[in-house]
Amino acid sequence: MDPTTKINIPESPRERVVIVGGGFGGLQLARKLSKTDYQVVLIDRNNYHQFQPLFYQVAMAGLEPSSIVFPFRKLFQGKKNVYIRVTEVTEVDTTTKTLQTPLGHCNYDHLIVATGADTNFFGNENIEKHAIPMKSVAEALYLRNNILDDYEDALTTPGYDPRQELVDIVIVGGGPTGVELAGSLAEMKKHVLPKDYPELNIEEEVDIYLIQSGGELLKGFSAESSAKALKYLTDMGVTVLLGSRVTDFDGKTVFLKDGRSIPTQKVIWAAGIKGMPIKGLPESACTYGNRLEVDRFHRVKDTKDIYAIGDVCYMEEPDWQKGHPQVAQVAMQMGKNLAKNLHGRLRKKDPTPFTYNDKGSMATVGRARAVVDIPSPNFSFGGLFAWLLWLLVHLFAILGTRNKVFVFLNWVANYINYNQSLRLIIKPKIK
Amino acid sequence: MDPTTKINIPESPRERVVIVGGGFGGLQLARKLSKTDYQVVLIDRNNYHQFQPLFYQVAMAGLEPSSIVFPFRKLFQGKKNVYIRVTEVTEVDTTTKTLQTPLGHCNYDHLIVATGADTNFFGNENIEKHAIPMKSVAEALYLRNNILDDYEDALTTPGYDPRQELVDIVIVGGGPTGVELAGSLAEMKKHVLPKDYPELNIEEEVDIYLIQSGGELLKGFSAESSAKALKYLTDMGVTVLLGSRVTDFDGKTVFLKDGRSIPTQKVIWAAGIKGMPIKGLPESACTYGNRLEVDRFHRVKDTKDIYAIGDVCYMEEPDWQKGHPQVAQVAMQMGKNLAKNLHGRLRKKDPTPFTYNDKGSMATVGRARAVVDIPSPNFSFGGLFAWLLWLLVHLFAILGTRNKVFVFLNWVANYINYNQSLRLIIKPKIK
Repeated sequence: MDPTTKINIPESPRERVVIVGGGFGGLQLARKLSKTDYQVVLIDRNNYHQFQPLFYQVAMAGLEPSSIVFPFRKLFQGKKNVYIRVTEVTEVDTTTKTLQTPLGHCNYDHLIVATGADTNFFGNENIEKHAIPMKSVAEALYLRNNILDDYEDALTTPGYDPRQELVDIVIVGGGPTGVELAGSLAEMKKHVLPKDYPELNIEEEVDIYLIQSGGELLKGFSAESSAKALKYLTDMGVTVLLGSRVTDFDGKTVFLKDGRSIPTQKVIWAAGIKGMPIKGLPESACTYGNRLEVDRFHRVKDTKDIYAIGDVCYMEEPDWQKGHPQVAQVAMQMGKNLAKNLHGRLRKKDPTPFTYNDKGSMATVGRARAVVDIPSPNFSFGGLFAWLLWLLVHLFAILGTRNKVFVFLNWVANYINYNQSLRLIIKPKIK
Repeated sequence: MDPTTKINIPESPRERVVIVGGGFGGLQLARKLSKTDYQVVLIDRNNYHQFQPLFYQVAMAGLEPSSIVFPFRKLFQGKKNVYIRVTEVTEVDTTTKTLQTPLGHCNYDHLIVATGADTNFFGNENIEKHAIPMKSVAEALYLRNNILDDYEDALTTPGYDPRQELVDIVIVGGGPTGVELAGSLAEMKKHVLPKDYPELNIEEEVDIYLIQSGGELLKGFSAESSAKALKYLTDMGVTVLLGSRVTDFDGKTVFLKDGRSIPTQKVIWAAGIKGMPIKGLPESACTYGNRLEVDRFHRVKDTKDIYAIGDVCYMEEPDWQKGHPQVAQVAMQMGKNLAKNLHGRLRKKDPTPFTYNDKGSMATVGRARAVVDIPSPNFSFGGLFAWLLWLLVHLFAILGTRNKVFVFLNWVANYINYNQSLRLIIKPKIK
């Protein structure tokens, strides 16, 4: 496209705030600013907001993608100062204050980088080529289709070794995503697969591995919670390899640092993330984990009128000298604080520095098996009550009444019979 | 794959019935035979049964695909004599009684062709290349993504003529699918699009065309119902062109026989279907509409131990001298009758000739606008009561309690606010 084409947003006397990325941070900011006197442009590559904490349930055929995503246009119906563009920002020119996108260019008065983080393969091209990431609902759906396809193929694969490649699953990364995936795969192995595939010897043949480079699961959680998660997974039949590291994966065999190897075609990569800043920002602003260094007012280092929030930014505050955890809570609180400051700017108010209010962490492993850490008062617990709390918190966090109702009903149906009817290999036809 | 590879189904002393296609007819047959002493092999290209009457609601973002399809493996859990293979039959050898599939070959004692019908483009390659068919849930999802993508593109298309190509929609074929699509597009135009795309002038710019070659809509319905459907659509703002015919479509303009043309990139083709018999069956068995000629015991002409049911077969009976309509009711009743006959065969009973019990026809155009024809006593009605009956009949016909609940809730949500949150462009990532 001609780089002089405009993205077709009407010029207005209002100052224009362009938000790139409609994740937890960007969406929070856009919603707050939609009530102010700014013109708001929200750019996202999808036409929907994604609720990342439940991706793993989509991958496990426990929920439909539509239950955990929400279309931006519906969210902003009636907000005349909000413009949504479904595209990607390819570059920013900070001197002319212009963004380039495949739909044309777009100027800004204030730019907010809320592009989040993508999977980090740490430079291993083989792993990047063959492993399955879990950072979008499209990738979760790909994983679901992949698992189901492979079990179908296993039925007509008479040899034991080639069949192992199809039925075994390796998860790399012992954070919440890896732990939650391993737990739900273990439940699927026990309750669903034997009924769906009576021709296979599921109990004997299917192995689930969780590989974690550190010495404990759920890094950043309390020691009690880490130990509890490990016990839950081991009880459920998952082979957890701590202090282990994947060195290579050729699509058929996973190679570990200690020389061992596991035959499998399916490696789920949840071992790390890296920030996704926009091309054209100063290199001096880029810091640990490919994140943008910001001050406590979210201003990106060495830039003007450019802010970053959420997983893509790195901010230090007295209580968080190595930056904040890259989680939804931080992104949402940052979006809220930046909205307040930008709104205040129009009324000549001084901005407020960001302070993270840590409400705690939780992860679920399986039915009645979850862990919860609460920071103040310092307190951890697990089991049935933690699991119910996890369900409740996530249910309330999902956008939209319809989505809440549908997720709740799916959970109830799943609780009653462990036996969803969502194990469908649906791929939209491509012309 | 080596054509001598076997599809890995254990040999058994039971006679093997292979059913190709798990649509309304094939599924009915497989469910009945699962309770008999046959070994049943069900081959389908998908791992799920599709509820075709509601495809149009998936395309219009009113329902999720998962609500109207049901996985075969869940349906046949616990049936040890049923084997499911997700693949396609490429050829049959009637002398050796063997099927070829990409997974290997499969022998049969009795073969049932239940492959259904596919879209008929009547040999026009341009139309086949550019128009969108609606014969699978994958195609319905493609249509949904296509419509939403085009409205996003229209936002950044400043020229009036190129924008018309994106926002106008032409539906070809005035049967139930075409009528139902046109009606729900008209409702979307009125209630959803102006809220989602306030930047576009929806009322003035969006045109919906329904093109029907014959002189009336809903051919095969009563004259009252046809007239009523036409009135409903016209009242809702659809431009219905009767006695008109599409001669060509180059992806940007539709050309009609009378010399007129309509600028649009989106043509939905619901103008005809053709049977999909299996390669290797005798040519002499192939008749009108590419269907297989069968006698009243479902036996395919000039073959042995081969049967056909549903849309792919052509059967004459005294009351239906030009064959049956290609609808779900016929297929299901045929599946049931053939199951009874095959079961009776094991107990040396004489087979029963098929007699179609016509329970009537119905089509819905929009909210409180539907038509119902009941054949005996000859009786037609429309309006609110017909619409409620349509909803009820379809709700009960959908497989699975979860699906019924979810479809019902979606309908209620949609009734209350016309405003689904399913307008999502989700495409599983392809590696």
